[in-house]
Amino acid sequence: MRLTKNELKYIQSLRLKKVRQTERKFLLEGWRAIGEALNTPAGIELVVVQSRYIDDPDYRRFIREFEARKVDLREGSEQELAKIAETVHSQGIVAVVRQRQWTLDAILKKRPSLLVALDTVSDPGNVGTVLRSADWFGVDGVLLGKGCVELHNEKVVRSTVGSLFRIPVAEGIDLSAVMGRLRREGFRCIGTAAEATDRVADIDRASRTVLVFGSEAHGLGQELRSEMDQLVKIPRYGRAESLNVGVAAGIVLAFLRSDSST
Amino acid sequence: MRLTKNELKYIQSLRLKKVRQTERKFLLEGWRAIGEALNTPAGIELVVVQSRYIDDPDYRRFIREFEARKVDLREGSEQELAKIAETVHSQGIVAVVRQRQWTLDAILKKRPSLLVALDTVSDPGNVGTVLRSADWFGVDGVLLGKGCVELHNEKVVRSTVGSLFRIPVAEGIDLSAVMGRLRREGFRCIGTAAEATDRVADIDRASRTVLVFGSEAHGLGQELRSEMDQLVKIPRYGRAESLNVGVAAGIVLAFLRSDSST
Repeated sequence: MRLTKNELKYIQSLRLKKVRQTERKFLLEGWRAIGEALNTPAGIELVVVQSRYIDDPDYRRFIREFEARKVDLREGSEQELAKIAETVHSQGIVAVVRQRQWTLDAILKKRPSLLVALDTVSDPGNVGTVLRSADWFGVDGVLLGKGCVELHNEKVVRSTVGSLFRIPVAEGIDLSAVMGRLRREGFRCIGTAAEATDRVADIDRASRTVLVFGSEAHGLGQELRSEMDQLVKIPRYGRAESLNVGVAAGIVLAFLRSDSST
Repeated sequence: MRLTKNELKYIQSLRLKKVRQTERKFLLEGWRAIGEALNTPAGIELVVVQSRYIDDPDYRRFIREFEARKVDLREGSEQELAKIAETVHSQGIVAVVRQRQWTLDAILKKRPSLLVALDTVSDPGNVGTVLRSADWFGVDGVLLGKGCVELHNEKVVRSTVGSLFRIPVAEGIDLSAVMGRLRREGFRCIGTAAEATDRVADIDRASRTVLVFGSEAHGLGQELRSEMDQLVKIPRYGRAESLNVGVAAGIVLAFLRSDSST
């Protein structure tokens, strides 16, 4: 079926954050990303495919899978795809996907043992990279504090490389306020701080842990820092002033998972 | 002094890779980055400052420092700065900086004990992040293989957050070809590979080490892989297919520097 003008307009409107938030939908680009989303509980509502791929044998298995899953499929021109896609890498396919909303309660009901929390991390690439690392290291859920970039921002979605669909994420969390509750539920709250005396290799391993990372510019806020059970640092051997927050989170997760220092 | 039309044209031309490469200069934006560059051997040739900052008391110490270092200072309008700057975050200041060129020989003359090599890493943010981590962990030099993004690409420069000026980097290196030489000079060549049996916590510590990272899409090329003395993996506990290469490099460096697993 051809894409209608109204559908095109609606899809274009999802490039705006406020529309994504009221509609609770977002856009996903690229064959691989959309193929991965098909195998998750993500609700794909509509897929627009550039005409020349519809009958291309290389893409037939995707088209068949969309049909099998009863995903609405629309045919669009190259120009229409260009209007919808954010990147030049859309590869001729864009999907409208329903946002999955997680609350902290819903995440806690799954009895998580390892959580990651981000405080005011505003760079979309960094948030996406942390989600991808969290997925690699088997984190059970991620809490995005107030001041973090919107989870369904196109750059966040792209840099998660599919992990967005595998990890429960709760947004807009007042992190200082929830740390007390997490502690009562048996979590040990661990933060990173340049002036910590414990090193990342000395990290406490507990049956339930929440790792908290602050913004690159300001680190953990004072209030949130006072809620931590342990502060650890990544020792510095050179002259850079700080590490990228995505890199720092990956390092802390790798040490937490390593048994070399137990 | 006012910026002339010819200067404006010349500076604009440096937004093109081929001009940067023939002129051996590049653009740097933002007060902090340019202030940091002043304290390094980087050769700042010219600084363009938006008129309203020139007499602003908050920026006086920068202006004085430019004068003390005999850096050519030009006054530009907001429109002119907008034409030069790549980002909306230029903060009203752009500098023309001379590229510092390192050869492998020049790096080896400094008797390095730890090197990082990147093979076909094309994403500028990833290369910049690796340089920043390398600077944090006290790496002595970085080798960019053929197929890596240009070092002085604006996004690389920005994501190094000043580390570009502190770490020697050689570009366009044929990595497979130089590994033999590095080994003869006493380096142990260590690469990452998903199918490695050694884990990153088991990494061999040698008096001289070169850590080699491949592209996210393809990992280390077959030829380069066969040159490695040890392959290590970052164990996976979840479902992500891979880690961001900047994160992976940070993790390997952190374990190499940690004594917890010696």
